[in-house]
Amino acid sequence: MAITSFNPPIRTLMGPGPSDVHPRILEALSRPTIGHLDPAFVGMMDETKALLQYAFQTQYELTMPVSAPGSAGMETCFVNLVEPGDKVIVCRNGVFGGRMLENVERCGGEAVMVEDDWGQPVTPDKLRDALAANPDARIVAFVHAETSTGAQSDAETLAAIAREHGCLTIVDTVTSLTGTPLKVAQWGLDAVYSGTQKCLSCVPGISPVTFSPAAMEKATNRKTKVQSWFLDLNLVTAYWGSGAKRAYHHTAPVNAIYALHEALVMVQEEGLENAWARHRHLHLALRAGLEAMGIEFVVPEAARLPQLNTVKVPAGVDEAAVRKQLLERFGLEIGAGLGNLAGKVWRIGLMGHSARPANVLLCVSALESVLGSMGADIRRGEALAATEAALNA
Amino acid sequence: MAITSFNPPIRTLMGPGPSDVHPRILEALSRPTIGHLDPAFVGMMDETKALLQYAFQTQYELTMPVSAPGSAGMETCFVNLVEPGDKVIVCRNGVFGGRMLENVERCGGEAVMVEDDWGQPVTPDKLRDALAANPDARIVAFVHAETSTGAQSDAETLAAIAREHGCLTIVDTVTSLTGTPLKVAQWGLDAVYSGTQKCLSCVPGISPVTFSPAAMEKATNRKTKVQSWFLDLNLVTAYWGSGAKRAYHHTAPVNAIYALHEALVMVQEEGLENAWARHRHLHLALRAGLEAMGIEFVVPEAARLPQLNTVKVPAGVDEAAVRKQLLERFGLEIGAGLGNLAGKVWRIGLMGHSARPANVLLCVSALESVLGSMGADIRRGEALAATEAALNA
Repeated sequence: MAITSFNPPIRTLMGPGPSDVHPRILEALSRPTIGHLDPAFVGMMDETKALLQYAFQTQYELTMPVSAPGSAGMETCFVNLVEPGDKVIVCRNGVFGGRMLENVERCGGEAVMVEDDWGQPVTPDKLRDALAANPDARIVAFVHAETSTGAQSDAETLAAIAREHGCLTIVDTVTSLTGTPLKVAQWGLDAVYSGTQKCLSCVPGISPVTFSPAAMEKATNRKTKVQSWFLDLNLVTAYWGSGAKRAYHHTAPVNAIYALHEALVMVQEEGLENAWARHRHLHLALRAGLEAMGIEFVVPEAARLPQLNTVKVPAGVDEAAVRKQLLERFGLEIGAGLGNLAGKVWRIGLMGHSARPANVLLCVSALESVLGSMGADIRRGEALAATEAALNA
Repeated sequence: MAITSFNPPIRTLMGPGPSDVHPRILEALSRPTIGHLDPAFVGMMDETKALLQYAFQTQYELTMPVSAPGSAGMETCFVNLVEPGDKVIVCRNGVFGGRMLENVERCGGEAVMVEDDWGQPVTPDKLRDALAANPDARIVAFVHAETSTGAQSDAETLAAIAREHGCLTIVDTVTSLTGTPLKVAQWGLDAVYSGTQKCLSCVPGISPVTFSPAAMEKATNRKTKVQSWFLDLNLVTAYWGSGAKRAYHHTAPVNAIYALHEALVMVQEEGLENAWARHRHLHLALRAGLEAMGIEFVVPEAARLPQLNTVKVPAGVDEAAVRKQLLERFGLEIGAGLGNLAGKVWRIGLMGHSARPANVLLCVSALESVLGSMGADIRRGEALAATEAALNA
């Protein structure tokens, strides 16, 4: 055995996440570790909570980073809110709705599915019908921005429908946070989780969550203990809660929190509205380039996430071979399809620090080059001008 | 709101963890992020597994880092192995045995407690008696190195007793891994978890685990689904398993794995036996200095962990004021007592990169200085010479 230090290749990350991490964030990540109960760290935890409240657009007191990836953030919402026997309406229009179903079942809840096609947003009328047919439902769970398809659902409308029926909402905002408008308090979302490795362009591994007072009331008045000790908010809040007295629960991932803090400071500096506009502007430029080649989008225009562009693989093209060439020749990563869409689509991310003009130009020109060299049926010679025009618009 | 970048104060970390992180590891942590399904990352995952096998002294196929802190590593062991109704013998001689009890109950298992005083190792005869009285027990859980007390239990003997009674073992090695002898395969331990922020002197946030074939057989032949989707080894192994085909489960904390890989390369370079000897040598030097001042150890000599020194606060001394002065005047962090020992002891860590002669000298001299200035009843003027003599021994 003679294993030596690992030096990663240099990549441009335009898949569904992780996105390119800004050098400022990598630098913050590597600052010297201090104790997780150090007064200086505790003060920084409070700043991180305030910055997360800004990013989520909420004042919910329970707003904090879960010390694990987005999947654990999802699980935090379900294990704290779903008690055995609770009926939960789960809207599924991609992979992550299916993962929500798994969570409901593993909590002993009863799931009622609202199904939409992959690539489509959740249909509000279907949720209305499901709630009318299930007046005993307690919770509605849906994905704001489906990372597996690039479709955005109308979180505000879905939450309003749930509220009319007395249901709490669990909302996946892993891919939407800071990339597209998300207004947790104004829309009345109840238990919301996200990830660091998407539009925050931070390193993967942490999951910001925010819980409304109503959600916290259910979580703290359960009849049964939360099945996960690690994710039990009744315990975690003693550590991440307010006030000078912090009770040890687990050891926070100190350096990852440094990085998240820096990422959130950068969001604050840019301003949320500017970040949303940047993602949209660059999406339009990427779209112009791709459509100029004849590449088509999967998701209907009104529901497209600017930060995650799912496009059809041109007929006859070996999609994996294209991704391999992009990676090996240009160090460019784009994403494959997942689940039902595997083999049929690419997912091109424009998230956070990845959402910049240079990346759009690289992606469009590298795709034209690789597809052209493989003899794919695309239009050549028009993409760059189309992209430029959209960048300058 | 005007929150700016966080610049941590410079500390010397001699508490119960995190320990000082070596600059090489901080530098590895900050290397550019790549995709978690990038072929280069997948190859590095295999190296990380091999290096973890060396650190754990095992060839168990399921040896991998859980993408969350040690508490989640503990939970991984319990949720995968304990099915509702399973009887589990839990040995408790500190905080973490109590956390194991919480885990058993939240999995629907029935816990039978074997109690020892805090600061004492687990008494093998008590385990024998509990197993004789509970022939239907399926699992024995104990802590190898109790982080709350600094006591080391005889894992080899306890595992042998469990095996005689047909039980699997779940073993907490959070504080022991690479700091004191741990031979997972030779001792026949079954489900073992650790942390990165102790003797690996890596950043906190990741939990290495290793499962024996017998443990994996129980985990993969359950009658019920694992209650945690995030920690379900039946799913996680498709991501961290062997073979070229990796199925997406969650997004690995890419940069934290870079750091763990580097920490493990450093363990390999030093050699486990040398690392164990270093921890022991520096423990003896610290002990010499502390005892020369008249400070007493809590744990009986035979059960002392070299990497975690729990000592009694001298009579009449405000222990929190001492820690505050050490932190503010010298940037030195030592740990408070936890649970039953709160207010009565300090926990002084000598873990990984913190286990070096300069740290021992700093700790001894800073303690003498602060305690002296507070008028504590300690012997003065002898500690430095005693420490030097032990360092040179």
